[in-house]
Amino acid sequence: MANEPAFHEARLRVRYAETDQMGVVYYANYLVWMEVGRVGLLQGGGLQLPRHGAEDGVLLAVAEAQCRYLFPARYDDEVVVKTWIERASRRLAAFGYEIRRAEDDRVLARGETTHIFCGTDMRPAAPAREIRATVRDQGEVRSAP
Amino acid sequence: MANEPAFHEARLRVRYAETDQMGVVYYANYLVWMEVGRVGLLQGGGLQLPRHGAEDGVLLAVAEAQCRYLFPARYDDEVVVKTWIERASRRLAAFGYEIRRAEDDRVLARGETTHIFCGTDMRPAAPAREIRATVRDQGEVRSAP
Amino acid sequence: MANEPAFHEARLRVRYAETDQMGVVYYANYLVWMEVGRVGLLQGGGLQLPRHGAEDGVLLAVAEAQCRYLFPARYDDEVVVKTWIERASRRLAAFGYEIRRAEDDRVLARGETTHIFCGTDMRPAAPAREIRATVRDQGEVRSAP
Amino acid sequence: MANEPAFHEARLRVRYAETDQMGVVYYANYLVWMEVGRVGLLQGGGLQLPRHGAEDGVLLAVAEAQCRYLFPARYDDEVVVKTWIERASRRLAAFGYEIRRAEDDRVLARGETTHIFCGTDMRPAAPAREIRATVRDQGEVRSAP
Repeated sequence: MANEPAFHEARLRVRYAETDQMGVVYYANYLVWMEVGRVGLLQGGGLQLPRHGAEDGVLLAVAEAQCRYLFPARYDDEVVVKTWIERASRRLAAFGYEIRRAEDDRVLARGETTHIFCGTDMRPAAPAREIRATVRDQGEVRSAP
Repeated sequence: MANEPAFHEARLRVRYAETDQMGVVYYANYLVWMEVGRVGLLQGGGLQLPRHGAEDGVLLAVAEAQCRYLFPARYDDEVVVKTWIERASRRLAAFGYEIRRAEDDRVLARGETTHIFCGTDMRPAAPAREIRATVRDQGEVRSAP
Repeated sequence: MANEPAFHEARLRVRYAETDQMGVVYYANYLVWMEVGRVGLLQGGGLQLPRHGAEDGVLLAVAEAQCRYLFPARYDDEVVVKTWIERASRRLAAFGYEIRRAEDDRVLARGETTHIFCGTDMRPAAPAREIRATVRDQGEVRSAP
Repeated sequence: MANEPAFHEARLRVRYAETDQMGVVYYANYLVWMEVGRVGLLQGGGLQLPRHGAEDGVLLAVAEAQCRYLFPARYDDEVVVKTWIERASRRLAAFGYEIRRAEDDRVLARGETTHIFCGTDMRPAAPAREIRATVRDQGEVRSAP
């Protein structure tokens, strides 16, 4: 699947709302950024998460999240969230993340999240065929970052 | 309805997450606190907002919010959110808020929100009888704050 | 100042984190988007808000915020935040906002915020000359929206 | 130090703002709750994090955060955040967390965060004596949860 994109890069600018009184981005917000990257990766593979009220669709319920904070992001920094699929199976998918400062490519954080495929009823479900394809195509390239 | 509580007071402690790099609480978070007060007032009147997936129930979709910021709340302040019903009709309810610092009763902010009664489909709906009663009982006392 | 931009448009995509269990964007997040628009407008005029730890600089402490919610924004909507200066004086600046859905230009919300010029010590201060110029130039065009 | 409290329990009620359109608490908010527990534990040991503008003081800059999500918290759930010190040295402290639903003691999540002692300039610093004492006293009891 050499033609498939192996990773996704989302760009965002740090909002005032995302800082805390220490003058840096509050640590929970890196998980919000990871979600932005994850959604971008999936959409790039043709997968749209269901909107509210959709009767069917497959959700990615989070099972685990982890982040290592290497250097603080600050207000107005432009940040790049690189996202790739680390592992994928019929029931689980794990995403890897690297968050860099655009200005000088300094790595600010690295993270990983693991998700379980769920139906809209929040019960585990095997992913629809299209999702499996997206995950498989992108998951094959593991050397992304 | 002299025996009805005319207002509700919620207490909360300012979280680190709620501050911004100016060292004070980020301005949007006052609206979160107003929601905490509003929910407390409604629950005190026996009204529970529907949980996710409930097939019926009446929601209060926000139509307008307004806040005047008088003095900044800071990390670890204990804050009291006083909430009352300003106006209520068959289709609308307006809530008033006063946010004080518990330590010295200093008023930090005053606000108001207006809501439309909606069904879980987000379409306007006349409120269920129990909600009308809650709103009516509490709304009659307008001199609360 | 006919050549000055009279308003600023920021584009953003609704994040999963910004929704609530009603399936729409949580109401406080519109104030976060207004901040994104406000910062963009000021930067477009050459004004950079001070970063954390800067010893001098002028902050815009919020005095009042108001938002009317016309139609709910939903997950993954692309949203345009149009921002302009409504009024400005030596001590105060008021910003107006119109938030539209990019897809069909539907107006989702309108708002206004008023701010007091403060030093980094949070005490009122007359704005630096460059800020007055920015505000004056942009504030002269009042027919923006 | 048998008389020292070995852990801290913070109680909080899930806010509407903390849910997402899946109808459950958005995953980043568990890190906010961990912060509430961590601050409570430190304050219980007599340690107050410095407020904004304090010229000295020791901060706990986060180096790593990890959370396993076992069962979703929902709007209006009462939640208990149990926090304890996992490890502590001159330069680092690691905290453990267990988040339970109060109603039935169901474990919703488990997590851990690691922090570096920093001065208010965000540079690593050996903790003040009082902090070392707090950490040492509470860190000795490792069988807490």
